[in-house]
Amino acid sequence: MDLQPQQVLRLRIPLEDFIAMGPGKATLLEAILETGSISAAGRRLGMSYRKAWQLVDQMNHCFTSPVVTAMTGGVGGGGARVTELGLEALRQYRALETRAWEAIQPGLGAFSRLLQQP
Amino acid sequence: MDLQPQQVLRLRIPLEDFIAMGPGKATLLEAILETGSISAAGRRLGMSYRKAWQLVDQMNHCFTSPVVTAMTGGVGGGGARVTELGLEALRQYRALETRAWEAIQPGLGAFSRLLQQP
Repeated sequence: MDLQPQQVLRLRIPLEDFIAMGPGKATLLEAILETGSISAAGRRLGMSYRKAWQLVDQMNHCFTSPVVTAMTGGVGGGGARVTELGLEALRQYRALETRAWEAIQPGLGAFSRLLQQP
Repeated sequence: MDLQPQQVLRLRIPLEDFIAMGPGKATLLEAILETGSISAAGRRLGMSYRKAWQLVDQMNHCFTSPVVTAMTGGVGGGGARVTELGLEALRQYRALETRAWEAIQPGLGAFSRLLQQP
């Protein structure tokens, strides 16, 4: 089997009734980082602006301080910036994924021997 | 944070277009093990017989030999048995979950310090 981490593992970090961070939110943060805009990030991920904004709002309420700040005004009408805390949360989340993925490698190899060979 | 593994981690082991094993299938196998019946296991999990049977059928096709065998006839009209391979797949899957969960404990503790305290 030639599996990718995202095919096998999903990590969701809950805080009370919300998901503070998960695969969708991490990907959205990365897209905001690259596009500098919540709406452009949402478009890239096939997500409405409303949905993208909701996810950002949930994250902003889960962390000790906002992970994304909106910049209003200026040429182009604003944009959005991933904060230092947002970068740190993203880095730590991806590191958790990697750590879990590495930990299951030997067991995954053994498990695959129980499966039909494609 | 006092989190349970199943709140945070989901492991799905794909084989081509199917999921050979995941949280739902593992729980179903355990319920079949305990009830000795696909329909009773489905009922316990709030799943139709048809749905439970489909999941069993998918697993049976993904592994080198069936993980559940149906016993027809006899008093009570049959029932279902989890095979040795099914038990082994279940054991290995739960061990993978535990391994991933243990691997992310230190990182999860660090991550939680970025979050609001509930």
